[in-house]
Amino acid sequence: MSSQSNNAVVLLSGGLDSATCLAIAQARGLDCYTISFNYGQRSRSELDAARKVAQAAKVKEHKVIDLNIGELGGSALTDSAIEVPEEETQGIPVTYVPARNTVFLAYALACAEVTGAGSIYIGVNALDYSGYPDCRPEYIAAFQRLIDLATKTGVEGGSISLETPLIDLSKAEIIKSGTNLGVNYAYTVSCYQADETGGACGRCDSCRLRKKGFSDAGVADPTRYR
Amino acid sequence: MSSQSNNAVVLLSGGLDSATCLAIAQARGLDCYTISFNYGQRSRSELDAARKVAQAAKVKEHKVIDLNIGELGGSALTDSAIEVPEEETQGIPVTYVPARNTVFLAYALACAEVTGAGSIYIGVNALDYSGYPDCRPEYIAAFQRLIDLATKTGVEGGSISLETPLIDLSKAEIIKSGTNLGVNYAYTVSCYQADETGGACGRCDSCRLRKKGFSDAGVADPTRYR
Repeated sequence: MSSQSNNAVVLLSGGLDSATCLAIAQARGLDCYTISFNYGQRSRSELDAARKVAQAAKVKEHKVIDLNIGELGGSALTDSAIEVPEEETQGIPVTYVPARNTVFLAYALACAEVTGAGSIYIGVNALDYSGYPDCRPEYIAAFQRLIDLATKTGVEGGSISLETPLIDLSKAEIIKSGTNLGVNYAYTVSCYQADETGGACGRCDSCRLRKKGFSDAGVADPTRYR
Repeated sequence: MSSQSNNAVVLLSGGLDSATCLAIAQARGLDCYTISFNYGQRSRSELDAARKVAQAAKVKEHKVIDLNIGELGGSALTDSAIEVPEEETQGIPVTYVPARNTVFLAYALACAEVTGAGSIYIGVNALDYSGYPDCRPEYIAAFQRLIDLATKTGVEGGSISLETPLIDLSKAEIIKSGTNLGVNYAYTVSCYQADETGGACGRCDSCRLRKKGFSDAGVADPTRYR
């Protein structure tokens, strides 16, 4: 395999899914460039968590990109005027950030073209997906089609493959698989309203999914609840 | 028509295509939000041009969004180590910016969701398109499919339509149509290496297409060549 196609771009949020996704890409022998986004999320501890995960995994390069989606407003994750719900809700939740994965993947694609990466890894999950439309398999398939048409690489006969190794896994399966690959989940933060040091609320949708995942997997939960 | 679906997001580059695209959207009775991107392009006069076009058109709001694509490198338009060619070239040119339209449209989509816009206007053109893969009709169709799957609006039964009114027009036809709608092309800058005040080189690919367009349209060329 050429050194070119051996590069991968991995989206790293600081949460447990993307940390597992990175470990899987590395286990496949890929040299990983990781990207995190500063999009005005309330919880800045996510970015610290992503940096710790990238350092622990000894990635080739970790980039933090400043976005301006937060400025646009419209989500409980970026707009302090909207409350983060602590009960399970129906439909698309208020924590949905407009077009978030589309913006993230667009940047990942630009990064893949520049670094000559043959793949992009994103830790989306269709089971425990919290109701976000841009985590579904049909969305991923549509983005792959866009990649094939959008890029110089695609037009010139190369390919950039969008990889979603977690798409069909339950939270418990993700945790088991990452634990086997040596992921230290103590570095990761899932809480939608984590405090500055990453202390979790234990009550939001994301905390509930995570807690249940560790419990179902039979793995000790390293989460620090505040 | 509700005030919601009467909103449109229009991508404004400062060039003549997007200025014409805005005029067409307004002629269709839409209330336009315009977006420009600061992506480290060499020519900052593009952003001044976009602002002048937006002001002249009295848009609802004009936003300039700072991107970081330029940081990634890889294009003659953002990387000063790569020379802008002054001869016609074959294939995808070095002025191609990785994933540019994908990143632009992703932001436009976020903005459309937040403003409740029913459409996104982009002035891509399949004829005089300088060989960029992300200006082709099949690329636009793939992005429309992505929009339908990606968004809360799409999932909840609404729709955001990606409009490309210039896609089949020649440069001369674009100029004629904009002239009829009262676009002042003196505000626009097309040159890949315009000086700080918007003075054009007259030699790059983009200058050559523009010059020929005015000549073919039989419209006086207001471009200020330096």
